[in-house]
Amino acid sequence: MTSPLFSRVAIVGFGLIGSSIARCVAEYPGLAKDVVCIDRSQAVCDRVVELGIAAAASTDPALVATADLVVLATPIGAFADLGAIIGPHLTPGTILTDVGSVKQSVVRDIGPHVPDGVHFVPGHPLAGTEHSGPDAGFASLFKDRWCILTPVPGTNEAAVEKLAAFWRGCGSQIERMEPGHHDRVLAITSHLPHLIAYTIVGTATDLEEHLKSEVIRFSASGFRDFTRIAASDPVMWRDIFLNNREAVLEVIQRFTEDLTALQRAIRWGEGEKLEELFTRTRAIRRSIIDARQA
Amino acid sequence: MTSPLFSRVAIVGFGLIGSSIARCVAEYPGLAKDVVCIDRSQAVCDRVVELGIAAAASTDPALVATADLVVLATPIGAFADLGAIIGPHLTPGTILTDVGSVKQSVVRDIGPHVPDGVHFVPGHPLAGTEHSGPDAGFASLFKDRWCILTPVPGTNEAAVEKLAAFWRGCGSQIERMEPGHHDRVLAITSHLPHLIAYTIVGTATDLEEHLKSEVIRFSASGFRDFTRIAASDPVMWRDIFLNNREAVLEVIQRFTEDLTALQRAIRWGEGEKLEELFTRTRAIRRSIIDARQA
Repeated sequence: MTSPLFSRVAIVGFGLIGSSIARCVAEYPGLAKDVVCIDRSQAVCDRVVELGIAAAASTDPALVATADLVVLATPIGAFADLGAIIGPHLTPGTILTDVGSVKQSVVRDIGPHVPDGVHFVPGHPLAGTEHSGPDAGFASLFKDRWCILTPVPGTNEAAVEKLAAFWRGCGSQIERMEPGHHDRVLAITSHLPHLIAYTIVGTATDLEEHLKSEVIRFSASGFRDFTRIAASDPVMWRDIFLNNREAVLEVIQRFTEDLTALQRAIRWGEGEKLEELFTRTRAIRRSIIDARQA
Repeated sequence: MTSPLFSRVAIVGFGLIGSSIARCVAEYPGLAKDVVCIDRSQAVCDRVVELGIAAAASTDPALVATADLVVLATPIGAFADLGAIIGPHLTPGTILTDVGSVKQSVVRDIGPHVPDGVHFVPGHPLAGTEHSGPDAGFASLFKDRWCILTPVPGTNEAAVEKLAAFWRGCGSQIERMEPGHHDRVLAITSHLPHLIAYTIVGTATDLEEHLKSEVIRFSASGFRDFTRIAASDPVMWRDIFLNNREAVLEVIQRFTEDLTALQRAIRWGEGEKLEELFTRTRAIRRSIIDARQA
C-alpha cells in the first residue's frame, strides 16, 4: 500500500464543508493519515470529538503546526484575522488552502500572512447544502462536483498538483481559474441566485400574517425551491456579498434592468416580448442538460 | 362495483396537464368511463390516438356535447375565444371547469359563455413540470398536490362537490378560495418566482459567449435550480403574466424595493442588515418543513 498524500490535515472551522472533508479522509484511504479540528467554539470541538470525525479537536490555532495540509473553512470574513493568527504557526512545506466562495478577497486577506516556504493555493469546492455545522457534513458531498483552484502566478506547481490530487480523491473534478475571473463567474452562477432567493423569501416574510400562512401552505408551486436556497448559512453569505461586492453589484444591476424591462412588458401587455424571452431561456436549460449538469 | 363519477370527460387542450388527467382516468377506476381529446392541433390529436390515452381525439369542439365533465386545459389567453366556441355545444347538467393558473380572468372570459343549466367551477391544480405536450403527462402528477377550486357565489354545491371528488380521485387535496384571493396568493408563490427565474436566466443568456459557457458549466452552484423553472411553457406563462397583471406588478414592486435595499446594504458594507435578513428567511424554510410542504 502506498503512503497517503498528506500526513495530517488541519481543518480550521468545522462546519458543513470542514466536517465533510474530515469524513472524506476517514472514508477514502490515500488522502491523509489523520485529520485535526481547529474551531473557535469549544462546543463544536466537543461535538467533533463525540462524532469521532477528527483525531484531535482544539480551539488553539497552534495545532496547525502539526499538519502538512491546512484548510481554512470558516466564513471568509474571518480570514484576515485568521491569517494573522495561524501564519506564524505554519511550518515550511505545508500547503495552505481554503474553501471560500470568493477568491480575490482571500488572496488579499490571507496572502500577506503566508510565511516563506508555505504554499498557498486558494480553492473553492462548488458543493454545499442548506444545512450547517459539524453534524451536517457527509463524505459524498464533493462527488462529481467541481473544485476550482485559483493559485496566483509563481505558485509551486507540485503543491497545486498535490492539492488537486487531494480533491480528486474526494470525488471532485478540478478546474483552474484566475481569482478575478472566478469571482465574476460565481457572481452570476451562485451569488446572484442566492441574493434573489433571499430577497423573494424576505418579501414573503413581510406579508400580512394570513397571506403568509397561505404562501407557506401553497409554496410547492415555485416558491419552495427558493426557500431551500434562502436557508443557507447567514454569516457565510453575509461575508460572500461583502467580499465580492463589485461583481455582485454589477450583476444585480444587469438583473434589475432586465426585470424592469419585463415589468414594463407586463404592464403594457407586450405578450410577444414575454414569449420571446421565455423561449430563449428554455434553450439555456437544454444546454445545461447537454453539459450533463442538470 | 359503483358507477364512475362521470360518464365522459372532454379535455380541451391536451398538453402536460390535460394528458395527465386523461392518464388518471385510465389508471384510477371510478373517475369516468372514458376521456375524449379536443385539441386545435391535428398533430396532437394524432399523437393522442397513437398513445392510446383517449377514446377519441378531434379538432372539432362540438365533441364537448358528448361529455358530462369538460376541462379547459389550454393556455388561458385562449379562454375568451374558446368560451364562445364551445359554449353553444355544452349540454345542461354538464360541469365545466378549467386548470388555469389565474382565476379572475377565467371567470371574466368564460363566465359569459356558460349556458343555463351548465355548472361552471373554475379550478387550478398546483402541479406541473417543466415539460410540455401530450407525451409529458403522467397519472401521479396530482398526487398529494393541492387543487384549488374558485366557484363564484351561487354555484351549484353538488357540482362543486362532484368536481372535488374527481380531483380527490386524482390524488389531490382540495382548497376553496375566492378568485381574487387565489390570484394574490399565486402571484407570490408561483408567478413571481417564475418571473424572477426567467429574468435571471435571461440575464445570463446576454453574457459574453465565453462567460456564458462557464455559467452553464458551473451552474450547479445555484443557477441550475432557476433554469428548470425557466424552462416552463412560454405561451402558458406569457398568458399568466398578462392575465394576472395587477397582482404580479404589485409583488414585483415589493420585490424590487427589497432587492434595492439589499443592493444598498452590500454597497455600503452593512453586514448586520444582510445577516438579519438571511436569518429571518431561514425561519420560513423551517415553517415549510413543519407544514410538510418541503
